[in-house]
Amino acid sequence: MSAIQDLYPDDFAHCYGCGRLNRHGLHVRTEWVGGEGVARFQPRHEHMAMPGFVYGGLLASLIDCHGIGTAAAAAMTAAGTRPGQDAAPRFVTAGLDVRFLKPTPLGPELVLRAWAVETTARKVVVDVSLSAGGIETVRGRVVAAPIPAGMIPVAGAAIQ
Amino acid sequence: MSAIQDLYPDDFAHCYGCGRLNRHGLHVRTEWVGGEGVARFQPRHEHMAMPGFVYGGLLASLIDCHGIGTAAAAAMTAAGTRPGQDAAPRFVTAGLDVRFLKPTPLGPELVLRAWAVETTARKVVVDVSLSAGGIETVRGRVVAAPIPAGMIPVAGAAIQ
Repeated sequence: MSAIQDLYPDDFAHCYGCGRLNRHGLHVRTEWVGGEGVARFQPRHEHMAMPGFVYGGLLASLIDCHGIGTAAAAAMTAAGTRPGQDAAPRFVTAGLDVRFLKPTPLGPELVLRAWAVETTARKVVVDVSLSAGGIETVRGRVVAAPIPAGMIPVAGAAIQ
Repeated sequence: MSAIQDLYPDDFAHCYGCGRLNRHGLHVRTEWVGGEGVARFQPRHEHMAMPGFVYGGLLASLIDCHGIGTAAAAAMTAAGTRPGQDAAPRFVTAGLDVRFLKPTPLGPELVLRAWAVETTARKVVVDVSLSAGGIETVRGRVVAAPIPAGMIPVAGAAIQ
């Protein structure tokens, strides 16, 4: 099965956080496993807050894109299409709340789990838990909205 | 006057978002102007959510580091030291809330203004407003806490 982000249409696949077509980006990939979104990410050395700990802005970015990918999967499930197999709808972030429970060590692969707590036509609310070495260090909540008409790109507009 | 982040001790100056010693980072710089923190940032082409719009995770990162810098300045003012002139204390992020009011266009320089709404020994709460081309597009709130003892680096630990 593909990641949710692998099935965004090309014009929506340039995001710095999760776009497969962004050469400089983070390439967050959300897999749909048993009704939850799961993502894994290995921070690079420069992604530090201070020596030994991961930068909070990176953690917020991972939660953002993984939350949006999970929102797409939840909306697909509600609509009867298949996350990881069918084309994914593109949501955008209306709200992002992050609680840093404890410092996140820089070194272990990070694991994010996410699940929808509310799914309507107007928005999907997703909770996210981020762990390092099996210990939860960050929790987040993403409010995802279907992409507004004004953000839909003209075909081929993003060349890089 | 220097930016707040220019006056973090070297061991606290490696942050991906605002560390002057992080070669790969964003280099957010908070200036203290009339009791408010002000920062300016020019996103790069790859910092897109989709063509024409800035990536939300980048905006959250700017709000994070600018909020922390402003928290340091507010704490200095409360303690009678001089933001932008004296060494700045290092805060860390306990909570980060971001509301995306409207899409942020990719192109104009972004301007962030921030101010403390609560300053105690235990935490500083900072509100942040982000504008592009004079239009406010994002609001954020950062809960900043003095750096915990366990995150204080051993001198010289961060080589890059």
